[in-house]
Amino acid sequence: MKIESIDFFYLSMPEVLNIGDGSQDALLVRVQAGNDTGWGECEAAPLPSIAGLICPMSHSACKPVQASVLEQPLNDVKDIYRIGDLVRANSLDLLQADHILSGIDMALWDLMGKRLSEPVYKLLGYHHAYPKLPYASMLFGDTAQETLAKGRQARAQGYRAAKFGWGPIGQGTVQDDADQFMAAREGLGEDGILLIDIGTVWVNDVAAASQRIKALEAARATWLEEPFVSGALDAYKQLSTQSSQVKLAGGEGSHNFYMAQQMIDYAGIGYVQIDAGRIGGMSVAKQVADYAQAKGVTYVNHTFTSHLALSASIQPYAGLENDIIAEYPVEPKSLALDITTNHIQPDQQGLIHAPAAPGLGMTVNTTGLQKYLVDVEIRVKGQLLYQTPTF
Amino acid sequence: MKIESIDFFYLSMPEVLNIGDGSQDALLVRVQAGNDTGWGECEAAPLPSIAGLICPMSHSACKPVQASVLEQPLNDVKDIYRIGDLVRANSLDLLQADHILSGIDMALWDLMGKRLSEPVYKLLGYHHAYPKLPYASMLFGDTAQETLAKGRQARAQGYRAAKFGWGPIGQGTVQDDADQFMAAREGLGEDGILLIDIGTVWVNDVAAASQRIKALEAARATWLEEPFVSGALDAYKQLSTQSSQVKLAGGEGSHNFYMAQQMIDYAGIGYVQIDAGRIGGMSVAKQVADYAQAKGVTYVNHTFTSHLALSASIQPYAGLENDIIAEYPVEPKSLALDITTNHIQPDQQGLIHAPAAPGLGMTVNTTGLQKYLVDVEIRVKGQLLYQTPTF
Repeated sequence: MKIESIDFFYLSMPEVLNIGDGSQDALLVRVQAGNDTGWGECEAAPLPSIAGLICPMSHSACKPVQASVLEQPLNDVKDIYRIGDLVRANSLDLLQADHILSGIDMALWDLMGKRLSEPVYKLLGYHHAYPKLPYASMLFGDTAQETLAKGRQARAQGYRAAKFGWGPIGQGTVQDDADQFMAAREGLGEDGILLIDIGTVWVNDVAAASQRIKALEAARATWLEEPFVSGALDAYKQLSTQSSQVKLAGGEGSHNFYMAQQMIDYAGIGYVQIDAGRIGGMSVAKQVADYAQAKGVTYVNHTFTSHLALSASIQPYAGLENDIIAEYPVEPKSLALDITTNHIQPDQQGLIHAPAAPGLGMTVNTTGLQKYLVDVEIRVKGQLLYQTPTF
Repeated sequence: MKIESIDFFYLSMPEVLNIGDGSQDALLVRVQAGNDTGWGECEAAPLPSIAGLICPMSHSACKPVQASVLEQPLNDVKDIYRIGDLVRANSLDLLQADHILSGIDMALWDLMGKRLSEPVYKLLGYHHAYPKLPYASMLFGDTAQETLAKGRQARAQGYRAAKFGWGPIGQGTVQDDADQFMAAREGLGEDGILLIDIGTVWVNDVAAASQRIKALEAARATWLEEPFVSGALDAYKQLSTQSSQVKLAGGEGSHNFYMAQQMIDYAGIGYVQIDAGRIGGMSVAKQVADYAQAKGVTYVNHTFTSHLALSASIQPYAGLENDIIAEYPVEPKSLALDITTNHIQPDQQGLIHAPAAPGLGMTVNTTGLQKYLVDVEIRVKGQLLYQTPTF
């Protein structure tokens, strides 16, 4: 059986705001082989990703991503790994390629799972999917007062863990940040698991981060996420020695196995956060989960968008019993919720589960998405290379 | 003075072949501010880079690159660094952004050099530009016999150093490769500096590389370049201990400072190769040159395309007297040669020099490039977001 088609659907809210909310648009991927269909999602800028899927070849190691996927045999899950390797070799010099591959890899796993009537985590090699404790992933309020209200709301909704990130954090005074941290703690309650996300705003400035460590300890934060950009290993390492209580978390910017490996090996992190929609899909995410496990670092998904992406992000560590924390988007835009007709809801114990249904276990809501579909046309030398496909 | 326009020109040979020759297309960049114009070149897939320049915003950290450049003040070279930082922050989640920024950064330096009547290397902080020994950068022949002929030709053309790469190397038997290495040595002559480039085909397979070390020593190769992909630091490190004679070279895949830093810190390389058209421009390349110098690693440019790119790639280490080896494209396609009306030619001693003229010192051949210009149109929601500009 061969891969017959790859369709990229650019979806967007009518208005995209200048805020750190990645659920305002989406790039949905459909792959077809024989009678089977798989769905995936790139956590990526849609237009450059579409361009990288279909662009003219520049040279033998700078080919469009579709050149390594279309017409490829897909008879076994080994073919998914083989296709990933092909993309990485043939699109070595196309920087966007890893983000583009990510959604395709997801769709291939979904397709194979449906064909073999198995959930993806089983095809990845796990016997059992353990429940995860979802943390409510939210933006900081513009003021500490707003953050307090958000924390209380998360608690009222039954979340035992919450992460606050982006918004004004890290950009004001040390006291401003301390007030925000304490407001988050107060809102969430004494026994809640509090996670703090700086969104890389300190870039590689260890001093800026160090000044906030006491306030983070006072607020009893479990982790400090992305104080720096993904590659700033030295800065991470230096900061990691400054608190035995607050562990560092990072890795969402990793777009291949090696970047995540280096975070684990050299950055002193306690938690590695992987977005299956960026790192090259579930194939690579599972490889990172195995490596993290061997190195004593806890794996966590990075997911701020749809429940299709959420299912895909949980599968690679579904079988790790002790890596229990999971990011769970609680304030996505309607687009992200509308991508699937079913959703991954916390059970009565407040835990979430990787779907037991075949593939990713999610049903894409093709009729409901029509209104979000962005019309795109790309012409090169007068030839139409891309046009928004139909569902 | 503000940046008024950024124009991306997609240029291509009439036919692009499935070979490892990156000079078959180009992405030329023109930036205008006040009465000044600067030119640069992204070493990048053109269409995805164009899309990343002009795409709609996805969220606050996934903006089109032009959002951080257009209308920005450009009064001082400090503004160039500031604009680079802005792009990295505002396009954090746009993977292609570093490649896109690279050509813009070059154009900004070229523009400021022209405005201040200084060559770029002076603006970067060097007092003097030292001559470099150009190595003829060539593809391996399909057979050892062809490689022998290529080596002889390079020698006859006056090159004292030559690099052979890509083509069939690393993909046949150990003996096939040994024959190729010896043919290259024989063609170049006993006293030539022989450099070997594997083009990442072993990915991270240390055993495959180890099997070729004896043959590389027998051929007296100065360096073994890119046996593995850029992030495979452990594989590099292991291989680096296997020969005291043949040093490892790598880093061309680095698309930010941190990746190059990690190659220097953890991969055991003797030479770090930086493409100013990929790493974020000359601003970042100079930062790597400083770091390499401090760590005792030799800096080398990576350039396989035009003389505009060549000038840009030499400037960041022009002032390093001992880092003398320079990559010099000797078999580029006509497009690459036609990008500039002037060229950087070896002097009577066979050495090349960073141009002493203002900026990058190169004159873009706008009339001669007309025939290579690729017509592109990108429409989103019926709106024309990009159309091939005119020279």
